[in-house]
Amino acid sequence: MTATDEMLAANESFAQAFDHPGLPGPPSRGVAVVACMDARLDVYRVLGLRDGEAHVIRNAGGVVTDDVLRSLAVSQRKLQTREVVLIHHTRCGMATFSDDEFVAELEADTGQRPSWTPGTFRDTEQDVRDSLAAVRSSPFLPHTDAVRGFVYDVDSGALTEVS
Amino acid sequence: MTATDEMLAANESFAQAFDHPGLPGPPSRGVAVVACMDARLDVYRVLGLRDGEAHVIRNAGGVVTDDVLRSLAVSQRKLQTREVVLIHHTRCGMATFSDDEFVAELEADTGQRPSWTPGTFRDTEQDVRDSLAAVRSSPFLPHTDAVRGFVYDVDSGALTEVS
Repeated sequence: MTATDEMLAANESFAQAFDHPGLPGPPSRGVAVVACMDARLDVYRVLGLRDGEAHVIRNAGGVVTDDVLRSLAVSQRKLQTREVVLIHHTRCGMATFSDDEFVAELEADTGQRPSWTPGTFRDTEQDVRDSLAAVRSSPFLPHTDAVRGFVYDVDSGALTEVS
Repeated sequence: MTATDEMLAANESFAQAFDHPGLPGPPSRGVAVVACMDARLDVYRVLGLRDGEAHVIRNAGGVVTDDVLRSLAVSQRKLQTREVVLIHHTRCGMATFSDDEFVAELEADTGQRPSWTPGTFRDTEQDVRDSLAAVRSSPFLPHTDAVRGFVYDVDSGALTEVS
């Protein structure tokens, strides 16, 4: 049995107990969260969210890429969110190797260089500040006055704001 | 009190009850999930996941963009995942407008056209198939033999596989 099969079995139980059909698409709290993909960061639990309350956008590092700006533009313009919460975290894998190192590895293995930048970083708080600036300076987002950034401690469960 | 402040208050309670420091970064189930950002899709609950078990990558639509391939490359090459699960869903906002319409709206409001494609779609199952193909054909992913795609029904909680 693969890990995917195990998750499908878990979904059968989840669906049997599911009791809230008919939720609307626009998030009821008007928030979009942008977070790292890290397995230790269960965004709904960490922020006390329930189904239907917030968009959750995640990638390697939680860095604000073009794809995140695309998602935020859809979130704000089509689904009425107004606040943005950025979450990076302690002990992130993206701080354990460099962009050059990763591109060299890909090129050695495949003979090709990726069109994307790996997005590694050294200083987590500075990476949050850079991400805050990228959201605030996007011309495509109508709401950039309530954008806040945090570092999540994977060993304590606590968020610390970065200003 | 903003929605963000409310989530921070919830995080204080969460951190007080937090009882599992020291989890390793590589996901213990060896899986990366790619899903839509939709607020009604609590990935950990839908799949029965606990902290530390799977990477979760999310964007508008759950479409496989360059940023998703970047995240999957990091997930597989640096954090040892081997399976990929794609989740799109019913009643998705991305099926309610067109790429041309959204680009025209952005250009009218800002005088600029985005560098990214909005990523809207009409047929959810076909969009899953396109996303499966994009993952399977990436030269940068070492593990493309266990890639499966699903549609999540936001009104029943059930996953249906797309083949």
